[in-house]
Amino acid sequence: MAYQIVDSNYGKNWVKLLHVTRNGPEHTIREWEVCSELTLDSKDDYMSGDNSAIIATDSQKNTIYLLAKNHGLTTPEEFGLLLCRHFLAQYSHVNRVNILIKQHPWSRIQAADGPHEHAFVTVREAERGCQVRQLRGQQATVWAELNGLQVLKTTQSSFVNFVNDEYRSLPDAQDRVFSTVVSARWRYVCSQRLVDYDACWSAVREAILELFAGPARGGIFSPSVQNTLYLTQVRVLNRLPEVG
Amino acid sequence: MAYQIVDSNYGKNWVKLLHVTRNGPEHTIREWEVCSELTLDSKDDYMSGDNSAIIATDSQKNTIYLLAKNHGLTTPEEFGLLLCRHFLAQYSHVNRVNILIKQHPWSRIQAADGPHEHAFVTVREAERGCQVRQLRGQQATVWAELNGLQVLKTTQSSFVNFVNDEYRSLPDAQDRVFSTVVSARWRYVCSQRLVDYDACWSAVREAILELFAGPARGGIFSPSVQNTLYLTQVRVLNRLPEVG
Amino acid sequence: MAYQIVDSNYGKNWVKLLHVTRNGPEHTIREWEVCSELTLDSKDDYMSGDNSAIIATDSQKNTIYLLAKNHGLTTPEEFGLLLCRHFLAQYSHVNRVNILIKQHPWSRIQAADGPHEHAFVTVREAERGCQVRQLRGQQATVWAELNGLQVLKTTQSSFVNFVNDEYRSLPDAQDRVFSTVVSARWRYVCSQRLVDYDACWSAVREAILELFAGPARGGIFSPSVQNTLYLTQVRVLNRLPEVG
Amino acid sequence: MAYQIVDSNYGKNWVKLLHVTRNGPEHTIREWEVCSELTLDSKDDYMSGDNSAIIATDSQKNTIYLLAKNHGLTTPEEFGLLLCRHFLAQYSHVNRVNILIKQHPWSRIQAADGPHEHAFVTVREAERGCQVRQLRGQQATVWAELNGLQVLKTTQSSFVNFVNDEYRSLPDAQDRVFSTVVSARWRYVCSQRLVDYDACWSAVREAILELFAGPARGGIFSPSVQNTLYLTQVRVLNRLPEVG
Repeated sequence: MAYQIVDSNYGKNWVKLLHVTRNGPEHTIREWEVCSELTLDSKDDYMSGDNSAIIATDSQKNTIYLLAKNHGLTTPEEFGLLLCRHFLAQYSHVNRVNILIKQHPWSRIQAADGPHEHAFVTVREAERGCQVRQLRGQQATVWAELNGLQVLKTTQSSFVNFVNDEYRSLPDAQDRVFSTVVSARWRYVCSQRLVDYDACWSAVREAILELFAGPARGGIFSPSVQNTLYLTQVRVLNRLPEVG
Repeated sequence: MAYQIVDSNYGKNWVKLLHVTRNGPEHTIREWEVCSELTLDSKDDYMSGDNSAIIATDSQKNTIYLLAKNHGLTTPEEFGLLLCRHFLAQYSHVNRVNILIKQHPWSRIQAADGPHEHAFVTVREAERGCQVRQLRGQQATVWAELNGLQVLKTTQSSFVNFVNDEYRSLPDAQDRVFSTVVSARWRYVCSQRLVDYDACWSAVREAILELFAGPARGGIFSPSVQNTLYLTQVRVLNRLPEVG
Repeated sequence: MAYQIVDSNYGKNWVKLLHVTRNGPEHTIREWEVCSELTLDSKDDYMSGDNSAIIATDSQKNTIYLLAKNHGLTTPEEFGLLLCRHFLAQYSHVNRVNILIKQHPWSRIQAADGPHEHAFVTVREAERGCQVRQLRGQQATVWAELNGLQVLKTTQSSFVNFVNDEYRSLPDAQDRVFSTVVSARWRYVCSQRLVDYDACWSAVREAILELFAGPARGGIFSPSVQNTLYLTQVRVLNRLPEVG
Repeated sequence: MAYQIVDSNYGKNWVKLLHVTRNGPEHTIREWEVCSELTLDSKDDYMSGDNSAIIATDSQKNTIYLLAKNHGLTTPEEFGLLLCRHFLAQYSHVNRVNILIKQHPWSRIQAADGPHEHAFVTVREAERGCQVRQLRGQQATVWAELNGLQVLKTTQSSFVNFVNDEYRSLPDAQDRVFSTVVSARWRYVCSQRLVDYDACWSAVREAILELFAGPARGGIFSPSVQNTLYLTQVRVLNRLPEVG
């Protein structure tokens, strides 16, 4: 007879990190979930049941904690790049590293007398995430993600003149309520060292809201979801040379 | 052989409502999910398979749409009271009405040139809900709910001197990160006609954040989760005579 | 600057337990999530920020592990009763103990040559849970729960002659597809020592399926959801004197 | 002022289908969720806000209902192939069709006197899904998916001799409880007309359970998760020539 705690490592190997920066009385926090995936150069070993090439998920987890402790947490993208470099340097038989990071949306509490020094509240609007992938001998690729931004406008949206065949039952709508959930994913193209990842992510979020809503008075007309998404992509590419 | 759309009325009978108020160019929205539960005075009928007393969930759904259309949507609590009165007046064999309402957290988009006239974004912080219950011949009871407010502070929290026996392994913590998820539920006691339900809900939310975080500079010390919750309850009861 | 793992004790304090019984080569497992809630006789202490009466959730967690180790896991209901007795005996200032237990649905794998000795698969049909509550000086109360049993029949169901007023739009249905999700909760009334909780739970599940489906050939007619639920309750009460 | 039901078409455009086959008194059901994605040959139109090439998601939904009604539902893979062919034939400016289908796990109820003619219960073990994608002028590609199969064995599993460096803290485990959640995805390679998709899916599920659990008495030894997954892939490829 035996008792033990159930291993909860079902599925992906997500590691939770909370980082507190104490800059005098003003504190800053970042909370992330980090997942690492390593691809080995040969599968010969574990095909035969020999584990000598396997880096345990538990060891990967320890690595993530130690690098967070020693290097600090700046942006998810930079921490992903650090992990890629580390795993490739530490294990010569690792051919590819893939890192996924999701950020918890903490906001500083707005007290009656100003932004709070050390107290935070979770405010979910759009979720931020990233993926960093590096193959041995190559430059890393960095993707950023913005997920779940739910928007609605009560006018300035129509949907008319779409394909009219025997499968259509929806009438033309000249002035409709338009609601959707926006998710975006983009790749950074220039040298990673120079990118301000926080600023880029915020700029993409702003471009989406601007093209959806337009100016506070009067708004902006949308002839279709597809057209609005297209215009948003054009604006992001024009504004941010870092985005490919 | 037959085909049909699956009835999705599994479990509770939630009805989604979107209400748009068009006050000139400035629009306001409320989106709710409403659930109604009716208790009949006698169960004789459907015990024997006679349905003549049953008010179909589909009819209850139609009722909710029609009352929304005819009376407008002000606060969840007032709409719950309206539904209770309606069902008791419409069906003499209904003895009890129970209404649950959850509000979707839409926020007006802040454009570069001010708050937007007609565009909104979902911002989840604390969820708002209410329950209204009325028995035939009695006054209705109104509960409000605030759920899922997730807060964290990086200092000004200790947890020391709690019970120390053979089951304790946690050491005293003089300065710890304190994080919790707050849910609150309260009952309104005075005449419902006079309550400003929106203002009361906001006041409870503010009291929770104030007692958790304290002033922007320096914060407020918390000797335990329990003590902070207690002080919050005291403040709410002192500030809001409407709350019991 | 500091790094630490985020405390995940948001909300309820659920403890995961996996119990393996090794009876020679044939093994048996039970996996549970257990939650304990203690009510203290006086709140004076922590109102003033003195924690000396508080039993940390971490200590409650240790207690659950230790009792599982020392006493073994039989049924959720019996383990709940054990925890109630323990907490009331261990802490004289605890006035009430409330225990919630949910069981993970492991099934023995059916191999080609029979039921497997030590390999299991998760098969979700109805979820099993229980609640045990005991006040100082009183007998414990035990509730069992069966949740999320989703059933569908393609005939032998009608819904006709229900209330017909201006809010009804649903026509009479003489032969309809009937699908619902059944949840049940019941209280045990006789002396807990004699109850076979596993057998009772299975008997309730069987009664629900029998009254819903009827015999394999021909089935059983249902004039309404309400009537079928009523007949199920009657059958459970008739068959199981332990259920109140 | 205006009221309306909220459009719930947030995100993907999933359509629910329930199909009942009435073969005398013995009925059979299939319940699916179907999602269609169409890629147009030119984006010129909606870049400029002209919708004349857009096939509304509502029209796609109607198409799915009508094809289900006219052709019946056999396997998800065959229905996906039918939808691809239809959309490419119906719309000459559609260049690519992507169909996703998830199947609801209904099981026939086992009554005391045998399998029930027309009553079913949801039993979740592994989820079945598929993806079918077709480009204009090319053959369709069919992938099947098996997701969320959660298994555990209490012995016959070790994990030893894996990479031992400064990041490792996990000791060697000679006899451990091994639990994981298996997901598999495979592509069919031969002519789709000849594949028995139901039988193939079941064969993959069986291969996974066999390699995980082994014979009922004694089981099968697993030196690592990786080795067990590798052996499973080899067995599936050997047994099923249809799988690539």
